[in-house]
Amino acid sequence: MRFILILLLMTGMLSQAQSQERKRARDHGLQIGVLPPGKHNAITDVAGVQVGHTTLIQGAGIRTGVTAIVPHTGNVFQSKVPAAVYVGNGFGKLAGTTQVQELGNIESPLVLTNTLSVGTGLNAVVGYTLAQSGNEEVRSVNAVVGETNDGYLNDIRGRHITEAHVVEAIKQAKSGAVAEGNVGAGTGTVCFGFKGGIGTSSRVLPESLGGYTVGVLVQTNFGGVLQIDGVPIGEELNQYYFRQQIKDSADGSCMIVVATDAPVDARNLERMAKRAMMGLAKTGGIASNGSGDYVIAFSANPTVRIPYTSAEKTQTVSYLRNDEMSPLFMAVIEATEEAIINSLFKAETMEGQHQHVVEALPVDKVIKILKKHHAIKR
Amino acid sequence: MRFILILLLMTGMLSQAQSQERKRARDHGLQIGVLPPGKHNAITDVAGVQVGHTTLIQGAGIRTGVTAIVPHTGNVFQSKVPAAVYVGNGFGKLAGTTQVQELGNIESPLVLTNTLSVGTGLNAVVGYTLAQSGNEEVRSVNAVVGETNDGYLNDIRGRHITEAHVVEAIKQAKSGAVAEGNVGAGTGTVCFGFKGGIGTSSRVLPESLGGYTVGVLVQTNFGGVLQIDGVPIGEELNQYYFRQQIKDSADGSCMIVVATDAPVDARNLERMAKRAMMGLAKTGGIASNGSGDYVIAFSANPTVRIPYTSAEKTQTVSYLRNDEMSPLFMAVIEATEEAIINSLFKAETMEGQHQHVVEALPVDKVIKILKKHHAIKR
Amino acid sequence: MRFILILLLMTGMLSQAQSQERKRARDHGLQIGVLPPGKHNAITDVAGVQVGHTTLIQGAGIRTGVTAIVPHTGNVFQSKVPAAVYVGNGFGKLAGTTQVQELGNIESPLVLTNTLSVGTGLNAVVGYTLAQSGNEEVRSVNAVVGETNDGYLNDIRGRHITEAHVVEAIKQAKSGAVAEGNVGAGTGTVCFGFKGGIGTSSRVLPESLGGYTVGVLVQTNFGGVLQIDGVPIGEELNQYYFRQQIKDSADGSCMIVVATDAPVDARNLERMAKRAMMGLAKTGGIASNGSGDYVIAFSANPTVRIPYTSAEKTQTVSYLRNDEMSPLFMAVIEATEEAIINSLFKAETMEGQHQHVVEALPVDKVIKILKKHHAIKR
Amino acid sequence: MRFILILLLMTGMLSQAQSQERKRARDHGLQIGVLPPGKHNAITDVAGVQVGHTTLIQGAGIRTGVTAIVPHTGNVFQSKVPAAVYVGNGFGKLAGTTQVQELGNIESPLVLTNTLSVGTGLNAVVGYTLAQSGNEEVRSVNAVVGETNDGYLNDIRGRHITEAHVVEAIKQAKSGAVAEGNVGAGTGTVCFGFKGGIGTSSRVLPESLGGYTVGVLVQTNFGGVLQIDGVPIGEELNQYYFRQQIKDSADGSCMIVVATDAPVDARNLERMAKRAMMGLAKTGGIASNGSGDYVIAFSANPTVRIPYTSAEKTQTVSYLRNDEMSPLFMAVIEATEEAIINSLFKAETMEGQHQHVVEALPVDKVIKILKKHHAIKR
Repeated sequence: MRFILILLLMTGMLSQAQSQERKRARDHGLQIGVLPPGKHNAITDVAGVQVGHTTLIQGAGIRTGVTAIVPHTGNVFQSKVPAAVYVGNGFGKLAGTTQVQELGNIESPLVLTNTLSVGTGLNAVVGYTLAQSGNEEVRSVNAVVGETNDGYLNDIRGRHITEAHVVEAIKQAKSGAVAEGNVGAGTGTVCFGFKGGIGTSSRVLPESLGGYTVGVLVQTNFGGVLQIDGVPIGEELNQYYFRQQIKDSADGSCMIVVATDAPVDARNLERMAKRAMMGLAKTGGIASNGSGDYVIAFSANPTVRIPYTSAEKTQTVSYLRNDEMSPLFMAVIEATEEAIINSLFKAETMEGQHQHVVEALPVDKVIKILKKHHAIKR
Repeated sequence: MRFILILLLMTGMLSQAQSQERKRARDHGLQIGVLPPGKHNAITDVAGVQVGHTTLIQGAGIRTGVTAIVPHTGNVFQSKVPAAVYVGNGFGKLAGTTQVQELGNIESPLVLTNTLSVGTGLNAVVGYTLAQSGNEEVRSVNAVVGETNDGYLNDIRGRHITEAHVVEAIKQAKSGAVAEGNVGAGTGTVCFGFKGGIGTSSRVLPESLGGYTVGVLVQTNFGGVLQIDGVPIGEELNQYYFRQQIKDSADGSCMIVVATDAPVDARNLERMAKRAMMGLAKTGGIASNGSGDYVIAFSANPTVRIPYTSAEKTQTVSYLRNDEMSPLFMAVIEATEEAIINSLFKAETMEGQHQHVVEALPVDKVIKILKKHHAIKR
Repeated sequence: MRFILILLLMTGMLSQAQSQERKRARDHGLQIGVLPPGKHNAITDVAGVQVGHTTLIQGAGIRTGVTAIVPHTGNVFQSKVPAAVYVGNGFGKLAGTTQVQELGNIESPLVLTNTLSVGTGLNAVVGYTLAQSGNEEVRSVNAVVGETNDGYLNDIRGRHITEAHVVEAIKQAKSGAVAEGNVGAGTGTVCFGFKGGIGTSSRVLPESLGGYTVGVLVQTNFGGVLQIDGVPIGEELNQYYFRQQIKDSADGSCMIVVATDAPVDARNLERMAKRAMMGLAKTGGIASNGSGDYVIAFSANPTVRIPYTSAEKTQTVSYLRNDEMSPLFMAVIEATEEAIINSLFKAETMEGQHQHVVEALPVDKVIKILKKHHAIKR
Repeated sequence: MRFILILLLMTGMLSQAQSQERKRARDHGLQIGVLPPGKHNAITDVAGVQVGHTTLIQGAGIRTGVTAIVPHTGNVFQSKVPAAVYVGNGFGKLAGTTQVQELGNIESPLVLTNTLSVGTGLNAVVGYTLAQSGNEEVRSVNAVVGETNDGYLNDIRGRHITEAHVVEAIKQAKSGAVAEGNVGAGTGTVCFGFKGGIGTSSRVLPESLGGYTVGVLVQTNFGGVLQIDGVPIGEELNQYYFRQQIKDSADGSCMIVVATDAPVDARNLERMAKRAMMGLAKTGGIASNGSGDYVIAFSANPTVRIPYTSAEKTQTVSYLRNDEMSPLFMAVIEATEEAIINSLFKAETMEGQHQHVVEALPVDKVIKILKKHHAIKR
């Protein structure tokens, strides 16, 4: 186990080193949408939100991992966050959905991993929460664990994710810049026939509209006809659903996590979650039959947290009115679109099990096409 | 009443005359998506589906109408069609949804009109159905009546739609080419700050994938940041949500009707309906708070119709397997996107109540921008 | 028209006179549940809630009406109430559901009538709301109009309800005791093979649990195997689904309106709404295929009302915590059960179209059976 | 591990021995509902359905287990069954719901266990399915694992369920009579303040209505005001929600599995699932805030199974028409009610962790009360 953890650390560093070599979409001059991003253009621009990865690259066939999104720096079980889940297409195993929808909150870190490791993810989050200081009497934990299927590159049937891997991702979660591409739960994923992975982005509303931040993190493993900022990259590269070699390439899945510091309740978070699928649509995704496309949205605003226990029968909260939601909807759409595109820009070519190779998005060609279509002005 | 009907006929002819002057998107060389359209590039490419409009343009302030979509040429109550409804954003008054969702079918013509005329639409469809030959014993009719709000151009509070107008739209429904733009329920609508209206499009799958047709008809009255085939027209014209003059311009609504001849059941029709919102997203729509965005999907395939009464306890049907749905999903997305764009290309500048004027999409400018962005090759 | 209204008034008085002859369940010594009822044992025990009926009994065949439930004494459009809808079984035409679910509120009086008059109900509520002082600029109204099918006793195809009837019900709505049985929307309904109608009941929580009131009003028109306070009345009377003469007698519908003064949000109101179907279940209802069983729940608590317009971006509200909901759930179940039973105790034998006669619940026999089973102690 | 398995076997025998001492409700003369039960009055009366338990009673504090319901005797992944899930109240961790709802089928054995062991259940079902002959290429498995919280009697935080326990329950699943009470996933549960557990029941429709069988299995762990066949047992015993000692006693959960041999599709299975909550309501359950009340319904009819792969694009199936559903709805309600009551009749007094003791339903007293109320005629 220790040996593995050391290996992980090394691959972690490697991965980080590699990912510095590839630039994010916006660093190439792309400007998706009309709203500005936050400081890190990441889900962590929402104050308190932290992200951690465990990347598992071992031998010829293990290409998988875990990504944890922690809603705030406190004890999430004792101080729950308003939340909602939207199912874009339910061919997936996301656990924990019904309690989120019933009670309107999330009470633990969110975990993303591969399809066959959801059970391990649940066990790990439950164990982590039971062991947290202050949770000694807790007997019920609703873990939210999502997944996509990395079984083309990864020996998914080997089920190499352990509970320790999951807890590690939670524990190393931090604010600031977020590693993207072939890291964590995105290590072995495929998107539009290219190497997918983890991507993130954010948007900040003008002060006149509240100044709120929306951050999105995605695990991209789906297909369709790739468009980047509206430009038909998939067609130009002759690599798209109906045309390409990888069988059933439109299938896969996309997990999307949306965070905001706007004080919104579960009902309006569900509405925000629905808009994330509209951002996915703008990249050319089609939510194919075999795709598990889910959106989990939560508010990290400290004033709307829900205490596990309370002496009060009521909770007094200032929620945004319905009338104020539209700018947040647009922010979700834009941040989701850019997060997906970032996952493609950052992911590198990967060789996995059975000598399967998935090529990275050919950035040089893509940039040329984007310039031809005036999506990049320079 | 007769006088009004004559007027209608005249405006109908006028409208048709005018609409011949403006070309559809594809006639300008735009090719949205990768699948080919059907013969008329219209919802009527699905065999049996018919569309009728009543256009009400009277005096300074009446700019409204009715559009009817008839699922097949028989008695729809006696021979129902599998159907589903998906609510993209429920700030709208679409009537009839819960029975469609519970029973999985539609039993009457679909009617679109303005927000304050849904009751009249219901009364008319109920009356029409009760009066149909063979329905003499019918005592329950589930009419499906949708709407968008044309209250900027139209004296909507005057509630000028009568039951006769609705029945007229149903009775004049026909197959073949469909009038678009400022007709029927689209007479007074506004879309992305330009004149919206009725639009339609279709897609045909390759024979190897079943050769099925998907047709879409839309009533466009919503906002956002307009993209045409991925090109940022709204930004280039400096006319988009957050920037433009018409207050709350992202609000409005979009009614979307999806028809197919594929033999699909209600569950898979609901999945198809969800994809229509992905097509809307690609035009830059954001499903704003005030938008009533609904999708009604049905199968017009004769083999899946549901008889009102039957001597049999069971019905034997050959439905498409889940595995075959992805190409249909893509067809819905593409046809919805193009139907919305067609509504903009076809709608003409309209002056309505209080001297409100909504300009048509400036096609010449738009074509130039599309060419600059290589969305039109010529 | 005037003549009709006079007639209405007369039948209204008659009906009231008649209904005084039959006692409510509790007046016979029945005590359904363990919580106490409010002062009137009616939905109007929730402060501000008002109920009005228009009863239409004319000639041999007209046996129908309208019941209006007004959430508070102010302008409901300008001051909306948190609300939710739950669909027990969606074979029905309830209009207005999707906007309630999306926005979490109701903005007009609720109206119940017969199946083929929903359109007229919508037109009337829209007209009423547009005409209210303060609504001069309103161009969008979400009317909520429910129904059951009284077509056995009533000439439903004649569609005898007018907009004036609907507005009359709204205008005469008042607090205090509520007329039950063959009144308003319950005039021509059938329940468990007996004469059904309007029924109401309420429950009050102990002060230690908040002291909140829950009120329920039902329009009963459904079937099954009748149980009264758990006693198998249907079996004892040999009158139940599978056994009785009236064809398809388990079909019909039940509209249920739940009001509370507890400060609950839309999500928890939806949870309360779901429990009403559990109360229906305890009467022996089965939510048969042909039944349109709907629950509309709202909070009449003044502190949670939602202003149509506001200078504030947020609204500060003290909502009940999830943990406090269980007693309210139980109150909904008990009040719904008793409201249904009240509709049966209060409805009188009715002869309608085609000499159809539906007998009232035979109270004397029923009381004997209840005593035998110790449901009535005396 | 071997030691544990031997222990299990012993407790299994013990438990079986004990449970023979207590009779089922019907053996006492109770006749819940009007439809007759099947041969075993169990979910296994639906041909092909098998049930297996692993019961874990160890030392002072381990009182838990696993119950597996296997839909048919073949490879369920290769030959899926139409299915649906209904959420009565979602304060629970049922995994696998979204894929069931999206695709309309179940592809593995169903597993019930305790709240903190869902992850282990998932891992076990995934492992079991991957290892089945014929599934060598499978890389995605949707396991459906439900739970209730046995943390009052059981050391739930110790998480004593292993994957081996789960697989054991699946492997020992068999047709015929089903052990009830303190077995499997019901080992440590509490219901209405009495010892709950596993219960089952079935109903058979008359041949004229198709002759179909509906079977229900429940894991009871919830509260309310107990009624047995309508008789207010909870009140008579002065043991009910609002009155009793066990804190929050209305909370808990109820897992309900509904099987039928009727050829019904996923949409109508969802409708059947909803009716199970109506059966629960008739026992006095209130679906309290803290209750995870879920219904999983599937059709075991061989003609409606869905092959994992197929050379055909369509599947030809004879499904029941909507019109035929009402008798099945009634069967679900009756069988659910009786299954819950059986769980109480069969469960014995249990002492668990911290010397917590939960008394069995006092059958002698209960029988007397039932006789007084004429629910038992003898």
